[in-house]
Amino acid sequence: MKYDKVLLAHGSGGKLSHDLVREVFLPAFGNKALNRLDDRAEVSVPGTRLAFSTDSFVVNPIFFAGGDIGKLAVCGTVNDLAMGGAQPLYLSVGFIIEEGLEMDILKKIVASMQAAAREAGVDIVTGDTKVVEKGSADKLFINTAGIGIVEEGIHISGHNAKPGDKVIINGFIGDHGMAVMAERQGLSFQSGIASDCAPLNKLVAKMLEVTRDIRVLRDPTRGGVATTLNEIAGQSSVGIVLHEKELPIRDEVMAACEFLGFDPLYVANEGKLLAIVPAEKAEDILAVMQGEKYGENAAIIGEVVSDHPGKVVLKTAVGGRRIVDMLVGEQLPRIC
Amino acid sequence: MKYDKVLLAHGSGGKLSHDLVREVFLPAFGNKALNRLDDRAEVSVPGTRLAFSTDSFVVNPIFFAGGDIGKLAVCGTVNDLAMGGAQPLYLSVGFIIEEGLEMDILKKIVASMQAAAREAGVDIVTGDTKVVEKGSADKLFINTAGIGIVEEGIHISGHNAKPGDKVIINGFIGDHGMAVMAERQGLSFQSGIASDCAPLNKLVAKMLEVTRDIRVLRDPTRGGVATTLNEIAGQSSVGIVLHEKELPIRDEVMAACEFLGFDPLYVANEGKLLAIVPAEKAEDILAVMQGEKYGENAAIIGEVVSDHPGKVVLKTAVGGRRIVDMLVGEQLPRIC
Repeated sequence: MKYDKVLLAHGSGGKLSHDLVREVFLPAFGNKALNRLDDRAEVSVPGTRLAFSTDSFVVNPIFFAGGDIGKLAVCGTVNDLAMGGAQPLYLSVGFIIEEGLEMDILKKIVASMQAAAREAGVDIVTGDTKVVEKGSADKLFINTAGIGIVEEGIHISGHNAKPGDKVIINGFIGDHGMAVMAERQGLSFQSGIASDCAPLNKLVAKMLEVTRDIRVLRDPTRGGVATTLNEIAGQSSVGIVLHEKELPIRDEVMAACEFLGFDPLYVANEGKLLAIVPAEKAEDILAVMQGEKYGENAAIIGEVVSDHPGKVVLKTAVGGRRIVDMLVGEQLPRIC
Repeated sequence: MKYDKVLLAHGSGGKLSHDLVREVFLPAFGNKALNRLDDRAEVSVPGTRLAFSTDSFVVNPIFFAGGDIGKLAVCGTVNDLAMGGAQPLYLSVGFIIEEGLEMDILKKIVASMQAAAREAGVDIVTGDTKVVEKGSADKLFINTAGIGIVEEGIHISGHNAKPGDKVIINGFIGDHGMAVMAERQGLSFQSGIASDCAPLNKLVAKMLEVTRDIRVLRDPTRGGVATTLNEIAGQSSVGIVLHEKELPIRDEVMAACEFLGFDPLYVANEGKLLAIVPAEKAEDILAVMQGEKYGENAAIIGEVVSDHPGKVVLKTAVGGRRIVDMLVGEQLPRIC
């Protein structure tokens, strides 16, 4: 380990996060389910394939255009389960609250969690609350864990991408990260950008009705599309080519990214999924996605290749090629 | 809700914690599994009874005699599962780390978690790490969630206590709380008090071999033995009588409590369970417990009565009686 202190970048979802997992957590906790390093574990209990996932949410500010920390906490874990092809069923919630938080704020967050849970069709069945002294936390942190069931015949994992497969995204890139950033900069009312935060489990269920042979699903949250595709390229030992002109990015998001110096490929999304699917099924899956609320703007944005295994290459609009690396350092702390 | 801000006491495990759950969380999230307000949910997935629980850990300091925040985080959730008669199988872990934490501290905590997981026979299968800016959290918070399976014929719940039942505890009261307190006061080396933090699932499994007819199991953590028994008395609509002279309390703990002004009945435990069992099975269960590592000092400390439903009464050593209420306010913040 090159670092003797934990840096913000260790929580970025990028390179240092991966180092932390590989050098600190895996050597201690390593087991078959954890070692796969998917965003959820798949475990079996007698008679059932279970998916199990957790996420903590520390977003700052806790309210932003299009969502809040509560909606994020429900959708985040629902989506981590859905990305394994699981049907999410139950959530736990753990609140860590800074003493003095307005009770009305807590109630608003809780109502928002329940609305998201209802939309996703999950129940929040168990929970815990801790309160720490003023100054020992920043307002409110929320952890959710979730369990879901995985039907037979579904084998979705970051390890399954194959040369020839297509890469699909279900809509516009970078909305969440730029909505939070706009809020922080006090630009929220003018920007017109809202977080894409949404539960994607019903979209995934529709996609699985087309074919169970979806290779990889992953939600490009921290670290964005670039980091997520790098993870997949690494896990599957394949190359991935992205077509810049196919990337769905809103003009406002692009403008905000240019203004603030961000690359949209590294900006967090909270209602997006990347699907890697067999080429011959790609158009059918795309059509079904476009018929769904959270897939209207879905697009095929690239393909899997056998060249440059472990690397993601962007074919630019003007015909160039550049390597799109994993996020190094921290672009935007406390984005989720 | 009488309070417009969240107070430390809302995290105490006592009266205000209960108000918060009933007035804020239940109205929003309410569902059959959550409404039971046991320390874990019991849910079913096809073919399986699952127990599901979560806890966040914010203990200060993060190292103390007999344990650390990592051991606590594993044992706490293992025990919440075990208190439902479940066999704990898998844990998730969510770290919220303050930027700048020494990497060596994190590694030590992680190693401690793994040692506890190994002792309990569970795997840590999924996780998440967030890092927040210096000053936005206090060193390290850990959330764990866990799942386990509940065999048929086991129906343990805070609702099941019946008049005539006996109340058993598996050992000395108040060790954890006073160990943390001693550490905070700089007394740790002299006090000789160590946290009782331990995984209790194997002890519970032995108890269930004697009889599946155990009515209630609960670990008296925040709020201590007094608050936990009040919860059970309320849920089961029964009275509980405690015999002061039967309460196992170490001399050092009693001395520290007197010195610092604590009542040991309200001090947190992290390796204790309260069992409410049919009178005719009590001696057999006690004997088995006393043969186990974490039950050597087990004792029958009281019984369930039909008088004063919802209330816990202590028969004092000198023959008096006093009502032992639920903890009101916060005795000792950040104890777990």
